[in-house]
Amino acid sequence: MSRKKLGSGTLQLKTPPVILSSAAMVGKKEKQGPLGEYFDHWQDDEYCGESSFEKAESFLQKEAMKYAFQKAKISEKDLDLVFAGDLLNQCISSNYSLRDSGVQFFGLYGACSTMVEGLILSSMAIDGGFADRCAAVTSSHFCSSERQYRFPLEYGGFRPQSAQWTVTGAGCAVVASEGNGVKINRLCPGAIIDMKITDMANMGAAMAPAAALTLKRFFDDTATGPDDYDLILSGDLGKIGATLLVELLKTDHIYLGENYNDCGCMIFDPKRQDVHSGGSGCGCVASVLCGYILPQMMKKTWKKVLVMGTGALMSPTSIMQGESVPGIAHLVELSAQ
Amino acid sequence: MSRKKLGSGTLQLKTPPVILSSAAMVGKKEKQGPLGEYFDHWQDDEYCGESSFEKAESFLQKEAMKYAFQKAKISEKDLDLVFAGDLLNQCISSNYSLRDSGVQFFGLYGACSTMVEGLILSSMAIDGGFADRCAAVTSSHFCSSERQYRFPLEYGGFRPQSAQWTVTGAGCAVVASEGNGVKINRLCPGAIIDMKITDMANMGAAMAPAAALTLKRFFDDTATGPDDYDLILSGDLGKIGATLLVELLKTDHIYLGENYNDCGCMIFDPKRQDVHSGGSGCGCVASVLCGYILPQMMKKTWKKVLVMGTGALMSPTSIMQGESVPGIAHLVELSAQ
Repeated sequence: MSRKKLGSGTLQLKTPPVILSSAAMVGKKEKQGPLGEYFDHWQDDEYCGESSFEKAESFLQKEAMKYAFQKAKISEKDLDLVFAGDLLNQCISSNYSLRDSGVQFFGLYGACSTMVEGLILSSMAIDGGFADRCAAVTSSHFCSSERQYRFPLEYGGFRPQSAQWTVTGAGCAVVASEGNGVKINRLCPGAIIDMKITDMANMGAAMAPAAALTLKRFFDDTATGPDDYDLILSGDLGKIGATLLVELLKTDHIYLGENYNDCGCMIFDPKRQDVHSGGSGCGCVASVLCGYILPQMMKKTWKKVLVMGTGALMSPTSIMQGESVPGIAHLVELSAQ
Repeated sequence: MSRKKLGSGTLQLKTPPVILSSAAMVGKKEKQGPLGEYFDHWQDDEYCGESSFEKAESFLQKEAMKYAFQKAKISEKDLDLVFAGDLLNQCISSNYSLRDSGVQFFGLYGACSTMVEGLILSSMAIDGGFADRCAAVTSSHFCSSERQYRFPLEYGGFRPQSAQWTVTGAGCAVVASEGNGVKINRLCPGAIIDMKITDMANMGAAMAPAAALTLKRFFDDTATGPDDYDLILSGDLGKIGATLLVELLKTDHIYLGENYNDCGCMIFDPKRQDVHSGGSGCGCVASVLCGYILPQMMKKTWKKVLVMGTGALMSPTSIMQGESVPGIAHLVELSAQ
């Protein structure tokens, strides 16, 4: 068995890498939500001054990187590797946001799990001795996602109550081999699981089994449980998916309590902001983690945190062809220093 | 500087991982090409017995994995991690081919550089102590690509002479911490470079500068040159891109000779098979590398080989919005044992 592998697939870092800084850049609706005050910056205009929603999304990524690099007092030239991806076809938000950087780049597609996928691969690169400084970056945009996955906004389609609202936002985390910040101790890459959900407007249900699989694997491999953490966070299961996750884990005698939350349930206020089942998109966990959770961990608000990025791995084409929605969930264990 | 980094970004593996086995599964046109006899298996039917081109592409991946695992005498359960991606929106070919595997999975999007991106990340995971056995998998399909990137086949659109023909094929390589096979010694992850090419039908030109950047970086970092290798291979620059790469490197006093070739120029016979500038797609370098190059290296036909995966990081949407085509090239240095 590989020397850093615990049990069935949790990875133990030998020299835990450190998240030196993070930043989140969001849209107007996210700014107006309960976490609004925590985001580094926001844009009133959904085009962000660009000529298309896709270019606007790329702009959000560039801004998130700018603020994260400023806080870590580095420039992109100081990075060894960048791991980035997004929801747009061919990941153009990331490809265009990084095309002028000159940084060695790995493109990812993990749907909404991409932020945590990037943190895992950054940690492996650093702990493996291949890099001193990496960045994990991702984004989503309500308008570019609606057009690509559902309907043009002008169509004014109604959304079922199980649907989620794609977050307009981007997050960037700078991970380094040493320094002050939040430590990444253990990793649990996800496996794909497909419970044959075919309703694209109920992605929480499609992703919850993957989150349950990863969380159970991690608890089993590390002989820990929910009580060992101040906060357990899933990416964008939303109200329906988060409820399902809690129920699914009960069948394995794992009981998530008050310390469990979902970024999709945190970013919007269900009373003031009509988002049905909650927030979603790569930018959901990215902006909540990079704008709120990590900075609060630096202030020791929480000391031990599990973060799971959850992704629904379908496409509009596969759904039109009658396929179901496979899910995946990647996990990192974080601790305040 | 990170301890395995040479110069400006080449990565030196401490304990070189080994490619234990590889396999390629292709379509009819590829079977009829000059390398036809080398591929593990082929499909006469472009639907591969499935109900859509997308599902057919996923089938090709599953078959390539099956043959590669058989040769390594392993099952998918013996894999620690899989790195896979493809050209389809949201990488559905990979997501669906691996949904029943139960293997921990990292989704990649590197356009046609994905095969080498997967080999690099597999090598880092193994040399870093996180995994004993990984697989790198990718695919492309002429019919699913034409529909998604260009026109429906039924439209019968004419293609300019600079266009390339997307390879119908998939490749899988099994990488391990020890065993007999082809060694991966050094890695050079690519950076994105955008020379403002806006013609989507001339992707060779868009990717050639990225290939030149990576190859020059590698030669500089390792104090080697073209003469140190039996074979230098680019992924899918095609006739135009390969010619440009040779010209671009001349300005840096690097002279590629007879030992340079491009998978896109090798897989089809320009006299018998009308593919204009050559083959392309994730499946191009994947099937040539996994079906032909690696097995020949195991027989010592070539001993020292450089393989570059080259990717064009645009989308049809970004091109319609007037954007240019950024390119990337990832490189691995291989040696026969």
